[in-house]
Amino acid sequence: MNLLIEELKEVVGTVSTNETIMEHHSKTFTYHKASMPDVVVFPKTEQELIGIVAVAKKYKKPIIPYGVGTSLEAQTIPYYGGIVVDFSEMNEILAIRPEDFTVTVQPGVTREQLNQALKQYGLFFPVDPGANATLGGMTATNASGTNAVKYGTMRQQVRKLRVVLASGEVITPGADAAKTSAGYAVKELFVGSEGTLGLFSEITLKLYGIEEYSAVAKLTFNEITDASDAAYQILAGGMKVTKIELLDAETIASVNKQSGLDLKVAPSLLIEVSGSKEEVGLQLAILKEMAGDWTCDLQMETDSLARAKLWQARHDAALSIAAANPGKQLMFTDVCVPLSKLSQAILYARQIVDKYNMHASILGHVGDGNFHVAMAIDQSNEDEVAVMHAINDQIVEFALKHGGTCTGEHGVGVGKKRFLQKEHESTLFIMKGIKKLLDPENLFSPGVILDVEG
Amino acid sequence: MNLLIEELKEVVGTVSTNETIMEHHSKTFTYHKASMPDVVVFPKTEQELIGIVAVAKKYKKPIIPYGVGTSLEAQTIPYYGGIVVDFSEMNEILAIRPEDFTVTVQPGVTREQLNQALKQYGLFFPVDPGANATLGGMTATNASGTNAVKYGTMRQQVRKLRVVLASGEVITPGADAAKTSAGYAVKELFVGSEGTLGLFSEITLKLYGIEEYSAVAKLTFNEITDASDAAYQILAGGMKVTKIELLDAETIASVNKQSGLDLKVAPSLLIEVSGSKEEVGLQLAILKEMAGDWTCDLQMETDSLARAKLWQARHDAALSIAAANPGKQLMFTDVCVPLSKLSQAILYARQIVDKYNMHASILGHVGDGNFHVAMAIDQSNEDEVAVMHAINDQIVEFALKHGGTCTGEHGVGVGKKRFLQKEHESTLFIMKGIKKLLDPENLFSPGVILDVEG
Repeated sequence: MNLLIEELKEVVGTVSTNETIMEHHSKTFTYHKASMPDVVVFPKTEQELIGIVAVAKKYKKPIIPYGVGTSLEAQTIPYYGGIVVDFSEMNEILAIRPEDFTVTVQPGVTREQLNQALKQYGLFFPVDPGANATLGGMTATNASGTNAVKYGTMRQQVRKLRVVLASGEVITPGADAAKTSAGYAVKELFVGSEGTLGLFSEITLKLYGIEEYSAVAKLTFNEITDASDAAYQILAGGMKVTKIELLDAETIASVNKQSGLDLKVAPSLLIEVSGSKEEVGLQLAILKEMAGDWTCDLQMETDSLARAKLWQARHDAALSIAAANPGKQLMFTDVCVPLSKLSQAILYARQIVDKYNMHASILGHVGDGNFHVAMAIDQSNEDEVAVMHAINDQIVEFALKHGGTCTGEHGVGVGKKRFLQKEHESTLFIMKGIKKLLDPENLFSPGVILDVEG
Repeated sequence: MNLLIEELKEVVGTVSTNETIMEHHSKTFTYHKASMPDVVVFPKTEQELIGIVAVAKKYKKPIIPYGVGTSLEAQTIPYYGGIVVDFSEMNEILAIRPEDFTVTVQPGVTREQLNQALKQYGLFFPVDPGANATLGGMTATNASGTNAVKYGTMRQQVRKLRVVLASGEVITPGADAAKTSAGYAVKELFVGSEGTLGLFSEITLKLYGIEEYSAVAKLTFNEITDASDAAYQILAGGMKVTKIELLDAETIASVNKQSGLDLKVAPSLLIEVSGSKEEVGLQLAILKEMAGDWTCDLQMETDSLARAKLWQARHDAALSIAAANPGKQLMFTDVCVPLSKLSQAILYARQIVDKYNMHASILGHVGDGNFHVAMAIDQSNEDEVAVMHAINDQIVEFALKHGGTCTGEHGVGVGKKRFLQKEHESTLFIMKGIKKLLDPENLFSPGVILDVEG
């Protein structure tokens, strides 16, 4: 062990076995149990990453890349010990190219840090998974979030990568250009690989112009299915929304309590439209007309402070569920279903949750058919864990039966491996083959996505 | 040989060794030399595809999938003989789901056939590579075309596939849902695999609502770089365009001649905007204001007949270049560069073409930084072929040096293998590994994208 640490110190500036730091990297805020690493390293350069890989190979120790630890399926927990590679010191924005609408960052740059730097150019990076995650982590999990309905997921934003492989080689899949048909989609393979195929050292991303003007509409309904039906009609009617989020009554209630708001406790849709003032006006007029046919309350906000307050409800949702249940850990289901199945899937989820008398909030990115059931459970209480799994199993089962997927945006991690096996029974051998091709010794994030022989 | 044909007749309804049919499948309209298959088969079902694969394996004969033969880099030419699988009889639209904005088709369905069937639902499929290609072929080459600037390429539209592998197994990568983070991007690997990894039997695609209203603007400039600079300013200014196409003066001249039009012979931009009448009005107003700062002529058309006439110029471009050079074959360069390098790249391309006294048209999807130099050459004239290669080499060289790609949308095929090796030197072993994993005997389209030992 000492030899491992000593050799790591020769290749990377900051190497830590401090108990607090190790513990911090042993867990997330979800229900997944903690597991300690052997050591945490804080590289600053690609050269250091190459050095870490060489040492890990020599000592046959796993490497687990770590952004800020906000992933939800234990992607960063070192269940086989090993070297946690914390990217927080690889946080340089290497090149902003406003003339190309692209930026190149180190993987430890966070979403908010990037957007802060882009502001002066009138540009922004749209993918927003809620947490102030790193771009490396977001690339690794193919993150999406509230803006995906308009802008797409990470896989559509990543133009090019630099990746350090298990062999120590550095590869550069992708291109700076807006599109390419040059060979197999190798870049796409790395986006969403959840740390299992290599260490990113640079990420080139697509950027967008900041929209001149935005407005938010809040619609409250009597029933949650009325809200999801309305969401469907909004999308089917061709309305151009930037965000369309659903929060159920229980989510609103805990947000109110947590954040001192007094939002009406009812199933709600939060809708953002953006563009020029005239474009936004056109979209809001369409929405008003549609809402006239529904039994709902409609509140519109164009003032930036009032808008911020409405979005606060959405942003605080995960936090409020945790706050309402001190000492417990969170579990989010993450199914995504075809649009027409959304109301049915949400109704079914609520029935299952009620059947087990579980306290749970339902919220989601309904523009993509993706929703979450958020539950707070005590990870040391076996009964609670069993109930939580029973609920999740049935919600996933329903989604898979209706053409959906077990994960719309959180990834497989450790928590959804058995669902992946079911959902992609026919392609699992391809995933395993790719893992073996790129990481034959199972060095990177073992036990994440796939169980393979190392 | 007879045994191969006899066994194929046992597994597939239509098997042809008719000389005319074989010859039709031996070539395309590009400069690539023809090569005869052993046999052409016309399957109707997935079961027949599985049967064909089994026979091909037994006789160690290549399988070459074929849509309508409009690919530009010899993807369908059977250079090692074997079995050409013509998908023209697998042309059923299996399920239109307007409620989910998706459709499932057999691979032989053409783009126009699909859009005809979708019209009654107010829906359409936006990817338009110009030719009335099959959806199977478009999926295989990751096609894009004029609408990509707004809607993206095939890789963003394909939700799910059914694929018959070399092993005879059928896999179903992807999901019906709008997004998924379930494991590695296997579906993305097959999109753009150019026939080298398997035979598609079903393709599920994303659909869009037909925009209510469209308008086309034609701008003519004195210099081609003025046109590409204007294109850049339009995009950088945040104008929302559906199409933005560049045609140089020579292209316009041959279109006029071929189609009896009298368009002004000058570098031109054709721009389409679409949406509600009000949205289109807003966009056109922005364009008018911008155009006031440029030295150009601006012509707007909202009338559908007048719009059709303007787009005719673009659509006829490839055809007109062929018609102007009877007996010759076509060659299209296909580089794509970062937006800010577009003007420079186009100027450089024109200089190279002029240096060799080649007759060539330049046209392209400038919204993505993708442009084509179209040349007509006699494939049997070695000097002409050498000049064409010299021109292409230098244009690709320039693109690669400036962060671009050797192919924006036509794919690698046989014609761009050496460029792929250069562009993706670091990831080529991954592409080869994937090919070996999925097609260890090099059964599918050998010699396309990669040269591997069979």
